[in-house]
Amino acid sequence: MRNEAFLDTALACLSTPRETEIPYLRCLRLQKTDEGIHAEETEKSPMKKGDKLVLDFGDHQVGYLSLRLGAVGSHPDAPLWLRIQFAEQPVELFEQAEEYHGWISTGWIQTEQLHVDVLPCTLRLPRRYAFRYVQLEVLDVSSKYALVVEDAICSAVSSADDAVLQPLKTDDPLLARMDAVACRTLHNCMQRVFEDGPKRDRRLWLGDLRLQALANYETYRNLDMVKGCLYLFAALPRDDGLLSSAIFLEPEPEADDTYLPDYSLLFTAALLDYYKASGDAETLRELWPTAYRQLELVKARLENGLIPDSSEIGWCFIDWSLDLNKQASMMGVYLYCLKAGQEIAGILHDPVRNELQAAWAEAADAVRSGLWDHQRQVFVSGENRQISWASQVWMVLGGLCTADEASALFARMEQTDAVGMITPYLYHHYVEALLQIGETEKALSVLRSYWGGMVEAGADTFWELYNPENPAESPYGGTIVNSYCHAWSCGPAYFLRRDRMGTEKK
Amino acid sequence: MRNEAFLDTALACLSTPRETEIPYLRCLRLQKTDEGIHAEETEKSPMKKGDKLVLDFGDHQVGYLSLRLGAVGSHPDAPLWLRIQFAEQPVELFEQAEEYHGWISTGWIQTEQLHVDVLPCTLRLPRRYAFRYVQLEVLDVSSKYALVVEDAICSAVSSADDAVLQPLKTDDPLLARMDAVACRTLHNCMQRVFEDGPKRDRRLWLGDLRLQALANYETYRNLDMVKGCLYLFAALPRDDGLLSSAIFLEPEPEADDTYLPDYSLLFTAALLDYYKASGDAETLRELWPTAYRQLELVKARLENGLIPDSSEIGWCFIDWSLDLNKQASMMGVYLYCLKAGQEIAGILHDPVRNELQAAWAEAADAVRSGLWDHQRQVFVSGENRQISWASQVWMVLGGLCTADEASALFARMEQTDAVGMITPYLYHHYVEALLQIGETEKALSVLRSYWGGMVEAGADTFWELYNPENPAESPYGGTIVNSYCHAWSCGPAYFLRRDRMGTEKK
Repeated sequence: MRNEAFLDTALACLSTPRETEIPYLRCLRLQKTDEGIHAEETEKSPMKKGDKLVLDFGDHQVGYLSLRLGAVGSHPDAPLWLRIQFAEQPVELFEQAEEYHGWISTGWIQTEQLHVDVLPCTLRLPRRYAFRYVQLEVLDVSSKYALVVEDAICSAVSSADDAVLQPLKTDDPLLARMDAVACRTLHNCMQRVFEDGPKRDRRLWLGDLRLQALANYETYRNLDMVKGCLYLFAALPRDDGLLSSAIFLEPEPEADDTYLPDYSLLFTAALLDYYKASGDAETLRELWPTAYRQLELVKARLENGLIPDSSEIGWCFIDWSLDLNKQASMMGVYLYCLKAGQEIAGILHDPVRNELQAAWAEAADAVRSGLWDHQRQVFVSGENRQISWASQVWMVLGGLCTADEASALFARMEQTDAVGMITPYLYHHYVEALLQIGETEKALSVLRSYWGGMVEAGADTFWELYNPENPAESPYGGTIVNSYCHAWSCGPAYFLRRDRMGTEKK
Repeated sequence: MRNEAFLDTALACLSTPRETEIPYLRCLRLQKTDEGIHAEETEKSPMKKGDKLVLDFGDHQVGYLSLRLGAVGSHPDAPLWLRIQFAEQPVELFEQAEEYHGWISTGWIQTEQLHVDVLPCTLRLPRRYAFRYVQLEVLDVSSKYALVVEDAICSAVSSADDAVLQPLKTDDPLLARMDAVACRTLHNCMQRVFEDGPKRDRRLWLGDLRLQALANYETYRNLDMVKGCLYLFAALPRDDGLLSSAIFLEPEPEADDTYLPDYSLLFTAALLDYYKASGDAETLRELWPTAYRQLELVKARLENGLIPDSSEIGWCFIDWSLDLNKQASMMGVYLYCLKAGQEIAGILHDPVRNELQAAWAEAADAVRSGLWDHQRQVFVSGENRQISWASQVWMVLGGLCTADEASALFARMEQTDAVGMITPYLYHHYVEALLQIGETEKALSVLRSYWGGMVEAGADTFWELYNPENPAESPYGGTIVNSYCHAWSCGPAYFLRRDRMGTEKK
């Protein structure tokens, strides 16, 4: 199923990112010791076989690399064979693609080997990379000449317009830095669509889109891009109307065959957010049936008012945790999106509003009777009545507790050994829940410790995954496949700007 | 020093090679055992990580590879990471660039690693390769899709026009095959200029040019290309007028800083050959001063009538042998080119003809008194009075012996443990010397055993180096850097066609 009219609208809203020329800032020599990676500024010099040079572009960039290459010695009498490695973080340069054996495709690793037949030349690499650091390694020249790297330029690309961005008013340097890093994260993920990460997977994901769009409304305000992305999802549903979790743009727009029901549901919330930011009633009206269909599809799957605790539930996302039972969280998302649906129906004077209200009440009753542990006073999930942070966060967002109840619930959770939170994506929803119940100080403290921890660990952009207990860890068995610029982590710009947290002093 | 008028003439004579589309012939599975490499035809199938496929293009090609790539399974969700290896001979595919540690730059090895972001696609590789076989190896895809190689095309390039080539009239299948292989060798080395080898070094060398031009006159008859190459050398002499041994065309025409005096001298012979083939008196007249200067420069270096036996002599080429003392050979080349110079001066009615005759007589006397071993009745070279085939070959070509004397000399040489011949380049001059003295049967026997040996060993084109004792050897420590299509080996087409050897039966 493919709605050509929606697709046309989508593509008309999406434009080619603008290019900005960024010269490299300095050359580095990097050394790795037990204490970490030591960077030392260095001078360029002619390079022979085995020589390496690291170029530092000063900040995280997404774009195209151009190298101006020359030679000294005799006329080059053999091709230059060059390895180029791109790194968002210096640590990536101490790993090799060939040595990575995890489950992420090594096709994502940003390394190239290429031959240059004619020197001097300007070499513009055809692929786009995400990086701050570029390591050039001469795999071979000949004995008669040496390579000279004359210059290096990044044609950085983004659909975010820096001229639009207002400075955050704060006296707090950590908050200022967190905001800047969050804005850079969002900026570099704003390409033709909102990408999850510009290094990997470079794809428009529905749940990620929602968080990016929220930060975008407070920062770059590229509303057309959000509209285009919403229409893209709506244009490419499954036969039964279910939305895919992700869309590929190339070679032509196509839905991913991954279906995460929480992501599909959140289309409703994303549509409402967009309407509130833009006032675009036409889009709200046109896409509301698509949103409503997501609510219907989940409702049809309920048994005794609840999403069944089947393995199928594993296919919703919620958080990057294999241990997490997702039944309760999924009910929370459903409740949350039913509320968003009611609000849209109210705006559009759609009589289904009452039906949605009834659905929310039914689902809330089923949760209270089936997923609330009276003894422990927490929400539980699944057959084994698992206690997790994810369940509580989504039940609070779903409106199951008053502010006081929620504060007490979160306080009780601190005393449990519940299944914790893994991704910035879930942390984002936790902070959102805290702010919703007025726990602003606690929310700020989470921002400071979690996102602030990444800043302390040297983040130029926020990461896909961050474990405060071990900032250097890679859950993929190699930092070389980590995504150190991942838009679902851009929340600080949204929270700090929307709620004026820490900005009161100005 | 740069003669712009000569350069303009040169560039006007050189054209862009024409392209011909060559589809791949079949897919192979290759296996290497102690008995050699076994090739088995196979079907294409979808390729996952680690899978390999060898495409056979049926004959040696020089050109650009286009691949039509698709995918099966889900929409590709990670870039394809592909290794492509090009091989003139199957054996090259059993070596890796990373494992080669010889003195040849590994930059020449025809292997690429590349990433393909969007599938399906048509991928045209920007570099030119020399190959019959292309091995594709999937370094990675993702778990969700497999690569499908839909098609592969080589846009083969050459400045040789196959329509011009007359068939060789012979009933002898080995001679017919040797001629075909030699023509293919020349064909694939005829690019914008005559290249020594299209895999490596892809460069116009003066000594090689002469042999290519001779075969070209008997086969493809692209006279403009020879003229352009002669003018290129003449346009870019050293300050003292010495011609370089090789010219680079890119990024703009420039002389190599390698000066081999035997190569410089042979410009005279090459110019005369060109005039005889073309009748182009204007070129002969215009380039004669350049040729004459090469003779003058060698003459100025003589001591007691001979080239001194200094280490500097090592810098002439003659043959690829570190053991060879080159003093006598170099005198032979000088004598040979003095004769060519006399002939040109005669055609142009240039009075220096007498001076050149006198120079020949002087040099011949010096050789007879200094480099002829009366006791052993052979020419000797250097302080240690080394006996080599190279010395005898060039003295015969230089006109120092009558036909009978030369026949007897070569017969005596068979009984010595003289320094032997290494390259097809020197073997070519040996065959030329044999034909000059009427030893046609012996010449044919050398062609059959030496070039015929390469044919027996599976040559599609003739090789840079061939050791009949060990056809599989690589003098460079790895067949992966061998050049299996090298124009200085194209002599059989010249000899068989010019002298009608073996063609009498038709």
